[in-house]
Amino acid sequence: MSKKMNLLMFSGEYDKALAALLLANTAKELDVDVTMFFAFWGLFLIRDPEKATSEDKSIYESMFGMVTPKGPEELPLSRMNMAGLGKQMLLEMMEEDKTPSLTDFLNGARKKGVKFYACKLSVDVMGFKEDELLPEVEIITAKEYLVDALASDMQLFI
Amino acid sequence: MSKKMNLLMFSGEYDKALAALLLANTAKELDVDVTMFFAFWGLFLIRDPEKATSEDKSIYESMFGMVTPKGPEELPLSRMNMAGLGKQMLLEMMEEDKTPSLTDFLNGARKKGVKFYACKLSVDVMGFKEDELLPEVEIITAKEYLVDALASDMQLFI
Amino acid sequence: MSKKMNLLMFSGEYDKALAALLLANTAKELDVDVTMFFAFWGLFLIRDPEKATSEDKSIYESMFGMVTPKGPEELPLSRMNMAGLGKQMLLEMMEEDKTPSLTDFLNGARKKGVKFYACKLSVDVMGFKEDELLPEVEIITAKEYLVDALASDMQLFI
Repeated sequence: MSKKMNLLMFSGEYDKALAALLLANTAKELDVDVTMFFAFWGLFLIRDPEKATSEDKSIYESMFGMVTPKGPEELPLSRMNMAGLGKQMLLEMMEEDKTPSLTDFLNGARKKGVKFYACKLSVDVMGFKEDELLPEVEIITAKEYLVDALASDMQLFI
Repeated sequence: MSKKMNLLMFSGEYDKALAALLLANTAKELDVDVTMFFAFWGLFLIRDPEKATSEDKSIYESMFGMVTPKGPEELPLSRMNMAGLGKQMLLEMMEEDKTPSLTDFLNGARKKGVKFYACKLSVDVMGFKEDELLPEVEIITAKEYLVDALASDMQLFI
Repeated sequence: MSKKMNLLMFSGEYDKALAALLLANTAKELDVDVTMFFAFWGLFLIRDPEKATSEDKSIYESMFGMVTPKGPEELPLSRMNMAGLGKQMLLEMMEEDKTPSLTDFLNGARKKGVKFYACKLSVDVMGFKEDELLPEVEIITAKEYLVDALASDMQLFI
């Protein structure tokens, strides 16, 4: 029987997202089933950069949607972000080594069939609409996440 | 045989605590056994807001107890806290959606029988007294935590 | 059959490293196999403080090596670091309780046979040379990490 990995994507930071997506892509190459469950700040990673809207949102939700990162490339680093300077440095170092970008890793995971779920409570509180997220994303409850996670061989909170 | 989830609560941040307690409450509804082990900053979440004391503490321990959050509602966000502004915005958005507060989730977990453990080493270093913590909390060693975690179906470091 | 614990060390912060190494040491006392896989900022913990070099590095890599922590004692706290003030306070409180230092815990783990792996991609991107890391450290790929993690009884992302 094939193995199963479940990642709870909470933090929404560039470097942690990079690590998680590298693991997700690598796991698929090993024929491991992969679920990524995006909650809270993690939702920023799966926003479709082209589709932000303020329609049908409260004032707080609209403001929140505008001041937060729209998609992978806008995520900050978890450390040494230094108003973007540290992130720029990391990106240059990645380019020197011909490392794929976060968007490349994200698209790789989408193509390889990693399952993308968004946390219903987080989506509701932050006021995101299903249309604002990548088309692969399905919205599920914490209960559905737990059933999947408990049936997995490893779970990480990232 | 029923499943078992073990959460190591390290960070002591409002949003992460909310996520963890939502999982803990949901897991109990699924008849999953839940252990929460509070270490380091995680201890702030299980301080009894009414019972802070400076008695029988060193100067460092007293200062530390005074400048750190006393109970769930004083915890900061892990991101975008902006001296409390971002947190206030999140709280307003939660209220718009009638989401329960962190204290509600915490009391829910206590009523549902989630097991609360505090890390002995952290309690000693930070100088907390058993009386300053919620009455449900039992103080255990890292060894006791590990035995419980290794016998669980999933473990998260939050 | 003996149990197995796998820790993914991502964050490179003093307090989280302390928690992880306390768990690693305690697990070995319980005869549990322990793997620590150091990625991204986590690599700072296993730099040999005596062996930083700029030889054979790009300008970005040299700069990066110089401005980042060299070994365990230079790591910042994940919270309340306050330019080192909060960390100094924690160190004083640890000394009052005669708690071993981070370096003690690290050396304990090395002596007890905890396996130390560094993430190849991270080492390449950050430009670290094998000689700059502790002699116990072996460089492996994300695939090798996953095979080990999936065969473990518990995995944490720290």
